[in-house]
Order: sequence, then C-alpha cells, then structure tokens
Amino acid sequence: MEFDEAVKGRRSIRKYGKRRVENSVIEEVLDLARYAPSSMNGQPWTFTVVRDEGIKRKLVEIKNKYCPIEKQEYRADFLLNASAIVVVCVDSEKSYDRGIENGVLAAATLLLAAHARGLGSVYMSAGRQDEPAVSEAIREILGIPSQVDPISILPLGYPDEIPEPKNMVSIHELVSYECFGKR
Amino acid sequence: MEFDEAVKGRRSIRKYGKRRVENSVIEEVLDLARYAPSSMNGQPWTFTVVRDEGIKRKLVEIKNKYCPIEKQEYRADFLLNASAIVVVCVDSEKSYDRGIENGVLAAATLLLAAHARGLGSVYMSAGRQDEPAVSEAIREILGIPSQVDPISILPLGYPDEIPEPKNMVSIHELVSYECFGKR
Repeated sequence: MEFDEAVKGRRSIRKYGKRRVENSVIEEVLDLARYAPSSMNGQPWTFTVVRDEGIKRKLVEIKNKYCPIEKQEYRADFLLNASAIVVVCVDSEKSYDRGIENGVLAAATLLLAAHARGLGSVYMSAGRQDEPAVSEAIREILGIPSQVDPISILPLGYPDEIPEPKNMVSIHELVSYECFGKR
Repeated sequence: MEFDEAVKGRRSIRKYGKRRVENSVIEEVLDLARYAPSSMNGQPWTFTVVRDEGIKRKLVEIKNKYCPIEKQEYRADFLLNASAIVVVCVDSEKSYDRGIENGVLAAATLLLAAHARGLGSVYMSAGRQDEPAVSEAIREILGIPSQVDPISILPLGYPDEIPEPKNMVSIHELVSYECFGKR
C-alpha cells in the first residue's frame, strides 16, 4: 500500500469479523512497529499478544471500570471480538524517562502497519496518569514486572464496519508560522 | 513511497543540507499528520512552523539547558541547520487527559510523512514530566497559551547524512503470547 493511502485510509475500527488474524501477520505488523524511533535507540518495547478469552475479559473489565464518564459510549466490550489484542509496554530502565512517548511512537506505527495489512484496530491507553491502579491491574493480569509500564492496548481484527467519514479540522486552523496562532 | 519502505527506511536525521523545505511541502506533511487518531476525535493539535533564526536559537538554548547528562552527545545545536522546526502542541481542553499520547500519535505520523517526502527529521520532546520549566519556557518563546502543552519538536530538512545501520533488537525478544515474557 502507498504510504499516503495508509495514513489517510486508517480509521478507528471497533467491529471485527470472525476471521482469525494469523500470528505470522501479527508478527509482520510488530516487526514494522519496532522500526519506530526511541530515546537513545533504547528500543524499550514489549508486545504481548493476547487471544485467551479469560485474559481478554479481565482487560475489558479494567478498561470499563476506569472509563471516564465522557467516554462511556466507547466501552471496551468490543475487545472480546478482536482476534488478538496487543498490549504495548515499555521498560522504564530502557526508556530514559520517555516511556509514554517511546511506547506511542511504536503504537502509532503499529496502527498504520495493521491498516496496511487490511487489519482494523483502535488506539486505547493502558494507563491513566491520574490513576496508577489501571497500569497496576494490567501488570497483574499479564504478569508484567514492576519496572515495565503498560502504555497502549491495540486490538487486531479484520474490519466488519465502514466508519462514517471523519470530521476533520482544516489544516489551516492547525498550522501557524513563527509564533503560536500566527497564520 | 510504499508504506513498509517508509517505515523501514525512516531514520533519525540530524544533519541537513542548505536546500529550503518549501511551505507547500511542510503543509503536505502536516496535512498527513492530522489524520492521526485522537481521543474522541478531539484533534487537539497545533503545528507551529519556526524558521526565524532568533526563535530557533531560543529553542536550542532551552533544549540544551535541560539536556540530561546521558544525552549530552545529542545536544540540540543542529536544530539551527534545519530548514524549519515544527513544534507540535496539544490543547488540554480538547485532549481528554491524553495530551502526550495524542501529540505523539500525530508526531509519529509526521516523522514518517516527512521521510516519505524525502525529508529528514528526528523526534525531540518539548517537555519533561519532572521539569515543567521546559514547557513553560517553550510557551513563552512561541506565545503559547497556558492550556496548550508543547509535546514534540520536529526539525525538517533535506538529509545531509546517511546514518550507520541501526542496531535492532530481534522481533522474537520483543513479542510474547498471552503473558508477559511467554514466547
């Protein structure tokens, strides 16, 4: 797929068909994700691929428990229908105090790589800065050591929806020159 | 450019030629960056494009002042030779407590889009979680309002270096199944 097409065509997908996403395809996507930049090339990432129904349910439970009121229409139950869920973590001993940034740089590449392989996904956080209990619970579910921080939860599945066109802010409202807000 | 090629070929570039990167090319890159996902489609981003020598110098000064000891070999002076510097910010009133994640999702797309247009860049943070003075100083330099958080500083220029091949951790060391560390 052409690069621009991958970027413009990627959408957040929360409905997946029953077709299994093979490990070989997931590893192609993860292989691309690890080309993301990281602080001092520390490559602090780990990718845990979850298919087990029981583990998925526990992740859903945690995400729903800590879902803020304004996001209630985006509850996490749909994760159960994903063929696999990738939990992106970052080892704080290799991330030079840039854990979230390092994790999200890989997650962003992963989302695009998934789309380029015909897969659907959606970005979900694996933590809340104001609520360390979320990361702690995910650590417990997946047996993650204390120095490793869960950053993102990225479901993978073949899309079973075509999202409505996305409302996008015009580029001219987002760009300024030399100083903030100067067009 | 093919998507996989863009991901695998992108490298952190800190040496730039004298050729100017035209605004039209920068806006193509920023246009792609705004296709990144954001919490509740809040699109909280702003992109400030800096070419002014004086403003660049102030950014360099701040980055160097707060450069941690272990990163001293990556001082920010090279920013002066970039044709332009994009400062990615996020409006905290539109980012649902996910400011860093939202900002980095756009920054990651921007880095890849730049490479796909033949440009070089490198990811730099515009803040430090343990040191709010960095963001505060950048706000002052660019006239950024207090509810807007600077997230990333991304120089743009035509590359004038071919980096050494990158040491990469094997995919098998990064991936596990069902539980952390289980291959």
